[in-house]
Amino acid sequence: MKTHSDPLLQLDAAGRLRHLLTLDGLSRERITELLDRADELRAESRGGTRRLDLLAGRTVINLFFEPSTRTRTSFDLAAQRLGAQVINFDIASSSTVKGETLLDTVHTLEAMHCDAFVVRHKESGTPEFIARHLRSRAAVLNAGDGNQGHPTQGLLDALTLRGRHSELSALCVVICGDIRHSRVARSDVQAFGALGVREMRLCAPPELAPAANEFPGCAIVHDFDAAIDGADVIVMLRLQKERMTAAAIPSEAEYFRRYGLSPARLAQARANCLVMHPGPINRGVEIDGAVADGPQSLILEQVANGVFVRMAVLAELLSAK
Amino acid sequence: MKTHSDPLLQLDAAGRLRHLLTLDGLSRERITELLDRADELRAESRGGTRRLDLLAGRTVINLFFEPSTRTRTSFDLAAQRLGAQVINFDIASSSTVKGETLLDTVHTLEAMHCDAFVVRHKESGTPEFIARHLRSRAAVLNAGDGNQGHPTQGLLDALTLRGRHSELSALCVVICGDIRHSRVARSDVQAFGALGVREMRLCAPPELAPAANEFPGCAIVHDFDAAIDGADVIVMLRLQKERMTAAAIPSEAEYFRRYGLSPARLAQARANCLVMHPGPINRGVEIDGAVADGPQSLILEQVANGVFVRMAVLAELLSAK
Amino acid sequence: MKTHSDPLLQLDAAGRLRHLLTLDGLSRERITELLDRADELRAESRGGTRRLDLLAGRTVINLFFEPSTRTRTSFDLAAQRLGAQVINFDIASSSTVKGETLLDTVHTLEAMHCDAFVVRHKESGTPEFIARHLRSRAAVLNAGDGNQGHPTQGLLDALTLRGRHSELSALCVVICGDIRHSRVARSDVQAFGALGVREMRLCAPPELAPAANEFPGCAIVHDFDAAIDGADVIVMLRLQKERMTAAAIPSEAEYFRRYGLSPARLAQARANCLVMHPGPINRGVEIDGAVADGPQSLILEQVANGVFVRMAVLAELLSAK
Repeated sequence: MKTHSDPLLQLDAAGRLRHLLTLDGLSRERITELLDRADELRAESRGGTRRLDLLAGRTVINLFFEPSTRTRTSFDLAAQRLGAQVINFDIASSSTVKGETLLDTVHTLEAMHCDAFVVRHKESGTPEFIARHLRSRAAVLNAGDGNQGHPTQGLLDALTLRGRHSELSALCVVICGDIRHSRVARSDVQAFGALGVREMRLCAPPELAPAANEFPGCAIVHDFDAAIDGADVIVMLRLQKERMTAAAIPSEAEYFRRYGLSPARLAQARANCLVMHPGPINRGVEIDGAVADGPQSLILEQVANGVFVRMAVLAELLSAK
Repeated sequence: MKTHSDPLLQLDAAGRLRHLLTLDGLSRERITELLDRADELRAESRGGTRRLDLLAGRTVINLFFEPSTRTRTSFDLAAQRLGAQVINFDIASSSTVKGETLLDTVHTLEAMHCDAFVVRHKESGTPEFIARHLRSRAAVLNAGDGNQGHPTQGLLDALTLRGRHSELSALCVVICGDIRHSRVARSDVQAFGALGVREMRLCAPPELAPAANEFPGCAIVHDFDAAIDGADVIVMLRLQKERMTAAAIPSEAEYFRRYGLSPARLAQARANCLVMHPGPINRGVEIDGAVADGPQSLILEQVANGVFVRMAVLAELLSAK
Repeated sequence: MKTHSDPLLQLDAAGRLRHLLTLDGLSRERITELLDRADELRAESRGGTRRLDLLAGRTVINLFFEPSTRTRTSFDLAAQRLGAQVINFDIASSSTVKGETLLDTVHTLEAMHCDAFVVRHKESGTPEFIARHLRSRAAVLNAGDGNQGHPTQGLLDALTLRGRHSELSALCVVICGDIRHSRVARSDVQAFGALGVREMRLCAPPELAPAANEFPGCAIVHDFDAAIDGADVIVMLRLQKERMTAAAIPSEAEYFRRYGLSPARLAQARANCLVMHPGPINRGVEIDGAVADGPQSLILEQVANGVFVRMAVLAELLSAK
């Protein structure tokens, strides 16, 4: 599978969004429309307590090749609250899924008629691969592919930030952690960039920093204390423990000392600096529990916004058909 | 986690039921109201064949840390038949769930908006622990926690008994099996006691008998034949096979000889003595198949009542909000 | 469990279909009615995009003792698109399910009120065994039992064939693969036979051929090239890899050389000969990818028809009650 996404693949002939594979190449206007729709759906569904029937009769298939109860539940609720039928098709336990077999599975599900595939896979490019080989008009939603992208996470983070700052252009955002392997970092940079965020700093141990040219316009920093100076927003990434070894960091305590967000460190940022994390958090590894639960944390707001953003994307992609 | 429940925790400021954590401390009136509501919902749903919309738009999350397809299916059907959306969140396979991580899971699901958590956990006190740390107005329903309680089982057993005896105060009830580790025994004694059952005898091998002061007002007996004399109702408990060893009982046949309910033994009780069991039954271990399937057995009536009782509890807790 | 089905068991006193256990003994008229109903439901549901409410309030339980995401998803979608509630009750992981315990599970689910059991089990006769011991008016649908039958597969294959040939009596159909152990072959022969197919040839390696008298009226052939001559339809069966050894076939390549459907071999059949396969396919083992994906292949049409046939059977069985 190729690992560079083609931003045009997700548009139909009329230039409308047909799939959501990546935020790369999506304009400020298009992202803003999706976020506006999320806000509208929050209101129409009364915060998720009222079922809408926008997608009545539609079938959404969660095709998760990597376990993720949290993201899958968010998509499941989003689809159910729009009135769709949901099939959860977990293949995480399957040892190997070869390209061919994957497509046979997809074509079989298409033949049963499905309107959307929500795809998570550890290999970058899988949602795009599926989108290229569809035989129906189904939509593909990338729910996280390898280290390449997690576009609904980027959108929900943008929605959350927009809820606190009506104008993002003045902000300085720091993203800290294993940038190299993070699909969240990539999607966040794309979303924040499209919305005009002024300054983005990516902070990581040298071994977990991205290639120099991969994030044009972003500063790459190794010293978290330097990165944090003047920050309006800090996005902390979850540390996969096996990465710690790769980064030559001997222990969780040592990682926390260098790259963890403690109350003392947070105090070095701007007053009221906001804290985000895609979850699930490792308390005491990349973030102190007091920060995660504190007044500057937006972590649960991100979770809440996740459902509305996914409702918006499903509504947008499926009503276009 | 603490292991003594606080009966007041499940009430709101106005004294209404907000959670169902335990039957301990629930008054006869309150229990009677729930049972009456179960009867009404049975009628309104025409025995479960007609979907109601009392909980349309509501989200119920089955949070099962211990596998139990039977109880989970009962709650799932109860919620679906009231029109709610159900998310089954099985974490039985997860090796360890630490207190902190458990709460992060709960707070994440709350942020996605959920109206009720149905919780089963092998550690006593988990539903209460969750209820104490909620950040929303969600309701917690205890679906079995350690050996502490299984309140909907107590209610459904009471509903089943009430269906056969309009007045419970004259009854002599025997509960037989591994009383020490049984959450069913605890919840049954609380339900039957609140409804005024005259005499309750708990029968167990000495090693599986409860502490002397734990069941005030109940007789503790080791000889099943003695216990059964004059009984109107016998509740048999499922034997966990690993307990047999602890009780120094060499075989299933020997357990059955001493504590199994055979037709001959049943004949020693009162005429028309009723037989109950929470299921799943071990035929030939604690109960003879002929008794389980016989005319005095209420086992399948208990199962049927389980769905209506759970509908009643869900309706009561979620309509109060 | 007995392994010969009793065709009368699935009829009620008035001669209507109460269960679908086998196609054996179903008349041409009855099969035609089911296929006609499938066509109607396809139209009414607009190809599966519109939810009907024929089964609103009904409960369908998928009771799968053998894993099969594909068939289970097809039944799940069929039931949901008719408005029913679906409970997926996977017991594939359970190590052993004894007859007694199986019935206790069934009776428990009946007590919760369920309208239909969709049963898959590796032992032939399990759906019939369940049907014989039901205590309610629930319907049993055989979703594949051992090597005995897979009646909805036979129906969907007949529906697919009927969609291409308005008159089946002139056709020559070849079924190729492990006939001996194939429930699909048995159900196909019953369905095609009832609809008057003129000639059926069963092709298998000698070790995987059926007993001589099991398929009266069918020719049994070991040479695929001979079998294929004059064929209008070829049904390829999935090869279970462990059978290859039993058939003294040293490799997948060798199986493909002798019994695989390659483009060259297909060219030996009649012009426009149709190709079917119940899926999932083993590309390069029993069928060449180019054939599976080619213009003569009906494989995905079979999948699509599967949902409509299952809707028809559910509607027929549950509306009779």
